[in-house]
Amino acid sequence: MTTLAITGGQVLRPDLTVTAADVLVDQDAGEIRDIGPDLADDADETLEAANSLVMPGFVNGHCHVAMTLLRGYADDKPLEAWLQEDIWPAEGELTADDVHAGAQLGLLELIKSGTTAVADMYFHVPEVADAVETAGIRARLGHGIVTVGKDDEVAREDANTSLEIAREYDGAADGRISTAFKPHSLTTVGSEYLEEFVPKAREAGVPIHYHANETENEVAPIVEEHGQRPLEYAADRGMLEPEDFIAHGVHVDDREIELLAEAGTGVIHCPASNMKLGSGMAPVQRMLDAGVTVGLGTDGAASNNDLSMLDEARDAAMLGKLAADDASAVSAEATVDMVTRGSADAIGLASGRLEAGAPADLAVIDLEAPHLTPRHDLVSHLAYAATAADVRHTVCDGQVLMRDREVLTLEEAAVRERALEAATSLVERVDT
Amino acid sequence: MTTLAITGGQVLRPDLTVTAADVLVDQDAGEIRDIGPDLADDADETLEAANSLVMPGFVNGHCHVAMTLLRGYADDKPLEAWLQEDIWPAEGELTADDVHAGAQLGLLELIKSGTTAVADMYFHVPEVADAVETAGIRARLGHGIVTVGKDDEVAREDANTSLEIAREYDGAADGRISTAFKPHSLTTVGSEYLEEFVPKAREAGVPIHYHANETENEVAPIVEEHGQRPLEYAADRGMLEPEDFIAHGVHVDDREIELLAEAGTGVIHCPASNMKLGSGMAPVQRMLDAGVTVGLGTDGAASNNDLSMLDEARDAAMLGKLAADDASAVSAEATVDMVTRGSADAIGLASGRLEAGAPADLAVIDLEAPHLTPRHDLVSHLAYAATAADVRHTVCDGQVLMRDREVLTLEEAAVRERALEAATSLVERVDT
Repeated sequence: MTTLAITGGQVLRPDLTVTAADVLVDQDAGEIRDIGPDLADDADETLEAANSLVMPGFVNGHCHVAMTLLRGYADDKPLEAWLQEDIWPAEGELTADDVHAGAQLGLLELIKSGTTAVADMYFHVPEVADAVETAGIRARLGHGIVTVGKDDEVAREDANTSLEIAREYDGAADGRISTAFKPHSLTTVGSEYLEEFVPKAREAGVPIHYHANETENEVAPIVEEHGQRPLEYAADRGMLEPEDFIAHGVHVDDREIELLAEAGTGVIHCPASNMKLGSGMAPVQRMLDAGVTVGLGTDGAASNNDLSMLDEARDAAMLGKLAADDASAVSAEATVDMVTRGSADAIGLASGRLEAGAPADLAVIDLEAPHLTPRHDLVSHLAYAATAADVRHTVCDGQVLMRDREVLTLEEAAVRERALEAATSLVERVDT
Repeated sequence: MTTLAITGGQVLRPDLTVTAADVLVDQDAGEIRDIGPDLADDADETLEAANSLVMPGFVNGHCHVAMTLLRGYADDKPLEAWLQEDIWPAEGELTADDVHAGAQLGLLELIKSGTTAVADMYFHVPEVADAVETAGIRARLGHGIVTVGKDDEVAREDANTSLEIAREYDGAADGRISTAFKPHSLTTVGSEYLEEFVPKAREAGVPIHYHANETENEVAPIVEEHGQRPLEYAADRGMLEPEDFIAHGVHVDDREIELLAEAGTGVIHCPASNMKLGSGMAPVQRMLDAGVTVGLGTDGAASNNDLSMLDEARDAAMLGKLAADDASAVSAEATVDMVTRGSADAIGLASGRLEAGAPADLAVIDLEAPHLTPRHDLVSHLAYAATAADVRHTVCDGQVLMRDREVLTLEEAAVRERALEAATSLVERVDT
């Protein structure tokens, strides 16, 4: 057994208590072997964690990593106009190579901010998968399907691509890659395609992930056309199973919250994106109270504009209070739970908790900073004060991806330079 | 003339365009001498700014810096309960030495996040002033007055202290310190004290700063007792003059917005505190549209929980869209303007803009980071993606306060250690 010891830190346990302990990792199995005192002797590799908090790596439950190329490209517009006037035209010009460059940049940012797993929806997924394999992170990938405005043949090809990708890449990268069937949303994919392909996805044993109830404009057409709330419509089409997860869930009514809780379908809350696009405030505390599995996601960098899950946690805690009109709602504890275990459960990973037998996916946070002083409550610091730059080490599947802020699996300067060039060239192509 | 040159950077101009230029600073005058090409020759001191954005230092328009000692001490509670059950009992135990330790920690955090000026309201102000003098930052200080629940003699003494402090410290630290008369709020200070002391403050030539319209619970009692909205009540007591500024302004109606605009009284918007305490959403875009001078502030670290103005800018842009139900509201440009010029104008400083003759108060942001790649729009990056750790150098009044992340005016480790000890001892005293 090859071992990694994370030594001398304060360890955040699944019950959100913190105790001084070492963490011993079985690198061959990619699992945590033990947590306790004096586990460092004879370890093959060591990560120093004095004055640091050792915690589960963050799980980003909804992202479009390659959209880092469009960070800051179009801001301050509502969802529909932003997609139609800016994002879709730019995405129409993206080559497979661009997506690879953008995905590498996004994964670099994720690792530097302590994120060890991501659920990603995009196109040119083989390039995203290749970037994930190299970066060393865990990912649930899928090809996003849009059928509106397309000929039936093209639409079916898109849905087939999503299904084939989900089948082909499930278990790739030594099991770090899992997949999902990913219709973009309930309004951008025709019901005939859902009815045909959802059972096929189920047969293939992959979950279904889609945007749902993000804006009022997404709810109204379904109610009008089908006489059902969107998640009732989804349930009737077999898209609300325990392994499935939706992104956003901003405009959900009590009946839909009940459906989500009963089904065990996860909700990935994306507070920054919801605020920036003016989509609204998700009823997070109400969902938690109802027993819904809620995780957090950054959405793409074009609507955020960063991929730090610590920013997302802070946003979730802040916005959750406003949405509930109650300062005790979405507490620091609830938030830290959502950004680790909640997201992992929602997207179907065993990560998100530090205990023997769990995947060795973890982040080490440097506590020696003015903004993390004093230390009345480290869970409060995670929810409200820590930032991406405080992450010192990142470990996924037992492998060290970042040591003392240096990413070991990607050449940072080269990745940034390539993305900068790809983005510059993209804008030139869109403008001509 | 002793000079400092900031060389090779991209400079953010007052119109929010960005151009490649050097910045030459007259250190004796503490002013920017020139901005343009090739100004580095013969400078006495140089700051390297390649691949960096040179911008005005952030101005924190409303803070209680010493409250860093209570960071994470009590979270997830609404304003009144939080103050009465947790904050005021703890503050009752704070010694002058504690306030000095907390102020140093807060100022260290401000410098590390590129903030060059702060408006601060607290008690033991001589200790805060001493910490400001050492730290090298610019500050408008004042003693916060609370008269409710006090004997007349004690209440008058508190108001007198605020007046005396404002007179004594105005112009201290070679002019870096200015002051204000600071009644805590319109509900915590009796009208008889406002009527007596506001004219005295006006005579002393210092502005008046207070919390106003922060929660619904602060508005109702004034309407009930005086038959006026809070800012009408304030105007009638001479507290709404061009040099005055209020903190929060969450629950302001159209008439009050008009009063603020007509008077030229500044509003310091504190989005993080307003979200965390569940106070509500200030109508920032409506205030900007009406011509109100709006700046940003962090409020104290116990209700935020950090003092980074880049976090505050992001929060303001995000929350402003939700409050307006419009994704185009509180744009990146409006936000960057608020966090620099807006705050400076509101609290009566000439800082917040980089141009010849302006105070040499500036921050240099390192752009070589994954989350700031690519570079479609640097103003967008400031509003949505940059964080405190991206700040490379901080300059105030022509003096370098931080060079390549090393704070030169304070011993970081010693300041953190002393604050940690003070906070630990404080909690022990409160608990017994």
